[in-house]
Amino acid sequence: MEIAALLREDVPYMDLTSSVLDFDPADSEIQFRPKEPLTVCCSEEASAVFDLLGAETTIHAASGSHVDPESPVLSARGTPEQLHKGWKAAQNLLEHFSAIATRTTSMVEHAVGARKNIEVCGTRKHLPGTKQLSLKALCAGGGFPHRLGLSDSILIFSNHYDLLGGLKTLCGMLPQIRKRCPEKKVTVEVESVGDALMVAEAGTDIIQLDKLPPSSVHEVSTTLKSKNLGTIIAAAGGINADNAADYAEAGADVLVSSWMYSGRPSDYRVTIRKT
Amino acid sequence: MEIAALLREDVPYMDLTSSVLDFDPADSEIQFRPKEPLTVCCSEEASAVFDLLGAETTIHAASGSHVDPESPVLSARGTPEQLHKGWKAAQNLLEHFSAIATRTTSMVEHAVGARKNIEVCGTRKHLPGTKQLSLKALCAGGGFPHRLGLSDSILIFSNHYDLLGGLKTLCGMLPQIRKRCPEKKVTVEVESVGDALMVAEAGTDIIQLDKLPPSSVHEVSTTLKSKNLGTIIAAAGGINADNAADYAEAGADVLVSSWMYSGRPSDYRVTIRKT
Amino acid sequence: MEIAALLREDVPYMDLTSSVLDFDPADSEIQFRPKEPLTVCCSEEASAVFDLLGAETTIHAASGSHVDPESPVLSARGTPEQLHKGWKAAQNLLEHFSAIATRTTSMVEHAVGARKNIEVCGTRKHLPGTKQLSLKALCAGGGFPHRLGLSDSILIFSNHYDLLGGLKTLCGMLPQIRKRCPEKKVTVEVESVGDALMVAEAGTDIIQLDKLPPSSVHEVSTTLKSKNLGTIIAAAGGINADNAADYAEAGADVLVSSWMYSGRPSDYRVTIRKT
Amino acid sequence: MEIAALLREDVPYMDLTSSVLDFDPADSEIQFRPKEPLTVCCSEEASAVFDLLGAETTIHAASGSHVDPESPVLSARGTPEQLHKGWKAAQNLLEHFSAIATRTTSMVEHAVGARKNIEVCGTRKHLPGTKQLSLKALCAGGGFPHRLGLSDSILIFSNHYDLLGGLKTLCGMLPQIRKRCPEKKVTVEVESVGDALMVAEAGTDIIQLDKLPPSSVHEVSTTLKSKNLGTIIAAAGGINADNAADYAEAGADVLVSSWMYSGRPSDYRVTIRKT
Amino acid sequence: MEIAALLREDVPYMDLTSSVLDFDPADSEIQFRPKEPLTVCCSEEASAVFDLLGAETTIHAASGSHVDPESPVLSARGTPEQLHKGWKAAQNLLEHFSAIATRTTSMVEHAVGARKNIEVCGTRKHLPGTKQLSLKALCAGGGFPHRLGLSDSILIFSNHYDLLGGLKTLCGMLPQIRKRCPEKKVTVEVESVGDALMVAEAGTDIIQLDKLPPSSVHEVSTTLKSKNLGTIIAAAGGINADNAADYAEAGADVLVSSWMYSGRPSDYRVTIRKT
Amino acid sequence: MEIAALLREDVPYMDLTSSVLDFDPADSEIQFRPKEPLTVCCSEEASAVFDLLGAETTIHAASGSHVDPESPVLSARGTPEQLHKGWKAAQNLLEHFSAIATRTTSMVEHAVGARKNIEVCGTRKHLPGTKQLSLKALCAGGGFPHRLGLSDSILIFSNHYDLLGGLKTLCGMLPQIRKRCPEKKVTVEVESVGDALMVAEAGTDIIQLDKLPPSSVHEVSTTLKSKNLGTIIAAAGGINADNAADYAEAGADVLVSSWMYSGRPSDYRVTIRKT
Repeated sequence: MEIAALLREDVPYMDLTSSVLDFDPADSEIQFRPKEPLTVCCSEEASAVFDLLGAETTIHAASGSHVDPESPVLSARGTPEQLHKGWKAAQNLLEHFSAIATRTTSMVEHAVGARKNIEVCGTRKHLPGTKQLSLKALCAGGGFPHRLGLSDSILIFSNHYDLLGGLKTLCGMLPQIRKRCPEKKVTVEVESVGDALMVAEAGTDIIQLDKLPPSSVHEVSTTLKSKNLGTIIAAAGGINADNAADYAEAGADVLVSSWMYSGRPSDYRVTIRKT
Repeated sequence: MEIAALLREDVPYMDLTSSVLDFDPADSEIQFRPKEPLTVCCSEEASAVFDLLGAETTIHAASGSHVDPESPVLSARGTPEQLHKGWKAAQNLLEHFSAIATRTTSMVEHAVGARKNIEVCGTRKHLPGTKQLSLKALCAGGGFPHRLGLSDSILIFSNHYDLLGGLKTLCGMLPQIRKRCPEKKVTVEVESVGDALMVAEAGTDIIQLDKLPPSSVHEVSTTLKSKNLGTIIAAAGGINADNAADYAEAGADVLVSSWMYSGRPSDYRVTIRKT
Repeated sequence: MEIAALLREDVPYMDLTSSVLDFDPADSEIQFRPKEPLTVCCSEEASAVFDLLGAETTIHAASGSHVDPESPVLSARGTPEQLHKGWKAAQNLLEHFSAIATRTTSMVEHAVGARKNIEVCGTRKHLPGTKQLSLKALCAGGGFPHRLGLSDSILIFSNHYDLLGGLKTLCGMLPQIRKRCPEKKVTVEVESVGDALMVAEAGTDIIQLDKLPPSSVHEVSTTLKSKNLGTIIAAAGGINADNAADYAEAGADVLVSSWMYSGRPSDYRVTIRKT
Repeated sequence: MEIAALLREDVPYMDLTSSVLDFDPADSEIQFRPKEPLTVCCSEEASAVFDLLGAETTIHAASGSHVDPESPVLSARGTPEQLHKGWKAAQNLLEHFSAIATRTTSMVEHAVGARKNIEVCGTRKHLPGTKQLSLKALCAGGGFPHRLGLSDSILIFSNHYDLLGGLKTLCGMLPQIRKRCPEKKVTVEVESVGDALMVAEAGTDIIQLDKLPPSSVHEVSTTLKSKNLGTIIAAAGGINADNAADYAEAGADVLVSSWMYSGRPSDYRVTIRKT
Repeated sequence: MEIAALLREDVPYMDLTSSVLDFDPADSEIQFRPKEPLTVCCSEEASAVFDLLGAETTIHAASGSHVDPESPVLSARGTPEQLHKGWKAAQNLLEHFSAIATRTTSMVEHAVGARKNIEVCGTRKHLPGTKQLSLKALCAGGGFPHRLGLSDSILIFSNHYDLLGGLKTLCGMLPQIRKRCPEKKVTVEVESVGDALMVAEAGTDIIQLDKLPPSSVHEVSTTLKSKNLGTIIAAAGGINADNAADYAEAGADVLVSSWMYSGRPSDYRVTIRKT
Repeated sequence: MEIAALLREDVPYMDLTSSVLDFDPADSEIQFRPKEPLTVCCSEEASAVFDLLGAETTIHAASGSHVDPESPVLSARGTPEQLHKGWKAAQNLLEHFSAIATRTTSMVEHAVGARKNIEVCGTRKHLPGTKQLSLKALCAGGGFPHRLGLSDSILIFSNHYDLLGGLKTLCGMLPQIRKRCPEKKVTVEVESVGDALMVAEAGTDIIQLDKLPPSSVHEVSTTLKSKNLGTIIAAAGGINADNAADYAEAGADVLVSSWMYSGRPSDYRVTIRKT
């Protein structure tokens, strides 16, 4: 249905170009193959595009697969008009979400290469209107969502505790806050090493370090260990594939990033041939 | 309604964090100000987010405005819970679509600086699920949509004419095709100078040059002029703010690009304060 | 989904009549056959109605087929309750949209009989809520949409140029307007021969002659030819199957009409029989 | 929301024509006035179109009003772009549904003129996708819906009783059927005087006479009276404004018709002027 | 689609628990069996949940079946992740709507046991958002909807006639009201025996007795009979399985109740096993 | 929009009863007052019903308010037709969701009376189609959602670990599972005291005790304390207002229940009067 809406956005009525060309209606085949190595995402949704048009599809690589250049990901057979109608809608799905998956994979590989038990989490800052597929791509690349939205988790920003009277006031409230939601972990975001330690000692479950360099993350991590505090360390703000390993080595348990959501789409070769 | 769906995606039920903090319900104010110069987009939609939550909003800069760093774009007054509920949904709209508008502005300025009568057109290759707002951002930045989809225009790719028997066959069909749709211009995409000239002579309204360097565009342009052919030249494939001026100088009438749709979101400062 | 909504509108809950009758659940067959010669439209959608109800359907004539009275268009097999539930929803689709297709066919035949290269275009004035199927019927009958809406084309009415200061002002702006949208043809609607010639000389791509008699169309057409102007002539306002040939002979390139959208529905015979 | 969808169908993205014209943004006014006497319908929905665009609207005549030619029905003030965006969507609503209302009014006047206590009921055979507004127009014109769909009423056609073994079998079942739905009236459609009398004697609440001439309706009516049977007589099939009085005089209690749903739209004059 | 929305509500993105467990992807089977005797409802919808997830389903008992404890109602085969994703959404459908169906069955059995020709009708007072499935459950249990909403029937409450000037005024209007809607029965709700008789004599089709004890219903029933009035008697207000027989014996033709909509869900045993 | 859909479900087209009564259109007032003490829920949504109809509304008691019998909760002024159209849709919202809120309040009061720091959490087992409003009612009554669905939390049932090879296997996997989701607490449901202790020692964050009596909860609680394990104890299965205090005294940190979702709706008095 979502896919039907995407297709209808691109082909609200007839395909004008196919209407004025005189295609032989005999079956043709469309093939999608990446021009670069990538983590596939949305071959299922791209396949659904052609299903809706009445073509027969074959998924050669499911979402989450790592594929080489020129290896087939999706193909479909149908009339030239059916294939042309679905072409760009399918290609758009594959290219944009494979790119998110591939960037996530790259970040996960760098992070896990440096520290085995680390998780890469994507924020809520994906493009508005793409939540479902952006999170699918994130998972396809080996990441997890950081939080789905405001209803499922407790994450306290400075915009929260400033209204309450500052971080110290919040620290005094933390024991009571934790009892209100015994099934959830409480996260507090801070912007300095000192604040991080204060919040950790006040009993938060997770400290989220915003825009601190790896060296500061390391300082927090070693101090917590020396004090025998099991607080989870999440690093956020400017984390990407290039610096993921540094943050991992510094002791972060979780990397929180929006970096994978933006960037150049992946590049797929699309051919339509008579069969 | 679209905006209601975006908000509900981020806050499907309660705001758990606000629920466990003990906010004074007196009015606060949230402010959105860019950290960098940009072309604003979606201040109307971001405002609608807070309207839905019952806050009072003020739009300081409409979509399409060019604003300096730290100048106010949007503010809203309401309870801390109302403002926190809308914060990220509004910020996400502003940051992603202002970025598209700003990249478009940059491309338009480079192109028009080099050649007065040139248009920058955005393709259909925006992120699936963002069509309406991506096109709004494109227009806010001074661009136009290239084509809305398959139903409104005639654009013939090699995937089309290869099925028909090749470009030459297509050229033979062009007069008839043009008569089928007297209200539309017919565009043919080609990948070489020779093909471009052949199609222009066959009478297409527009030739779309895919991934040709500016020098080739120049060759096509001067040849057409020398032959007194008024064919419109559209350049496509890899066009961006950096090379827009080169293509403009080379004689392109239209720059067709997907480049503005992808890239880092804009950066807004968001503050929430008691009033 | 659209079809599911149509069905649900007619059968929101149970079929009360079938509930109180004691039907033998053994399979029956429903058949739809026209009582008059017509161009079929919506046999696919009518078939989808029965699919949704779990019946097995056969489409005997696709949209766009020209069929004789009493020839089968659609049949479905299922329980009496399934067939009664879908009966009127399917019949309603077939009768209303076959009528639009048939009227379009008639108009196209008259026009093309008089002048080979002429197109019949349907306006946006179909019944609100029927756009997708009305345009499908228009195409099934051999027509094309005139414009899909305001976002895909440039059509300047007197309500536009009166606000700008009159037709003369517009004529002065035309060269600049044409450069703003090099990929589109610009159409100006006028209501007299004199205005038509003025606009043609100012360089519009298409002149739309509103409510002029064929004799005036002829005058415009011959004058344009004598001046070697290639402006496309669209005739609009009161064009129908009866006068289409006259306008075609007069030299119109395009007939723009809303006539096919309104009128008596086609008449189908519907039988339900035990098998 | 429905109205938002209609507007979006006509203006999915920008208004291209307004974009390339250089309108003075100062307020203008749009006015809708009928060119013929009519029963207004959908001035509220047409008004909502302009509300959505941010214009200020005034409804001069509510749905159901009978208005003279040139009397104002709706006006709106806003920028030229706002008014042009809403123009045709609003006009389309007014013209199509005022026509249905006006035809209904005409039929009601003829029927009631001939027999005071008679009702004009519209069938389910309106254009698919227009149910809500078609029924609104029907009521605005003084009619009532015959049945909303299959879930709210019991209407037994020959396609029902033929499957059961014929009309006689049905007559035997009628007492039991009536007890199954004590809150509903049971209607049986028949196509001859003899069948009508048989069903009336078997105890149906309503007989629906399909495609019988007024003389046959009269025969049924007088026979029922002579037998002291209070069965309601509904006449259906080909009933319209021209013959409504004949059927009323013949003794029909209800006229069941689809005639008002189809036909030429009403004609409104639309002006846009600077203020 | 409705079912897709329900599933998406429960599993908006990934199944986090399945993601962190290391399931063997080989097929497993899920089985749903009631722990108590019940009337099944929504096995079709529960099956659709698993269809959407790509599992293969078997419906062992259709809606409306009366089944014994531990007899299979639904089973599905698929990967552990597919089955866990659909488990609760399917169980929730089965448990809530089988409970409504079962309570309806119980009420119907008591009522019909006491008086053969009596109908059990469910009101519009089901939980908001569950109309379609609540009415399906009502029908599955042998009941009928009382009225679908305000558009399909005429039911006059004291809140209506108090505004008109009281019950007496209404009685004077009744003949005219009945003529306005000859195809509908007119129901008037009253709260005393005296009012009931007054309204019956004024010619209403149905009297709805609100919160009267069976003895009063009996009084009304016998008085109507003695006066040879065929007015239908509907009893409403506090009717449930326990007192349904009393009201039936007292002479009610229809029992109008909301009782079946509320109460403990049915209890199904759900097992997931390797196959 | 959701509310618009609920209203349209009840009044898809006209209000037939109001259509045939001859109401004075002068303003009347509708009032909603509970007949019993309760926690209000959905006065905002009920108010929105009348807003949609054009009436003026006043909310006297917001969701979450505890009100006495006969105190005003909501009133609206408008024409009799407007008020009758919204009456039942509004009443239905108030009665069903105030009942859920009131049952939750009762459960919270009993639980917190016995143990200060305890939370009452509602499961996902609300009626399908009512998630948003059921959770709103839960929160209005002082509860929290247990989990929103499968995407936001980790809860391992026996149906999970049986597939993995049993509880022991799961215990061996727990350390690794906890590292996969460092931001989430891991919950394991068990059905015996012994299993509870085994899982607690294996390091789960929360043990959910299914259908154990308070005495067993007490045994688990004291044993955990004696072993200095901070595992959170959630009690689930058959918890309601009557036994909430027992479970709280026994040492449960969280009560997980579906009990509040089902039961008799609250009772509101609704009056409509001339003003």
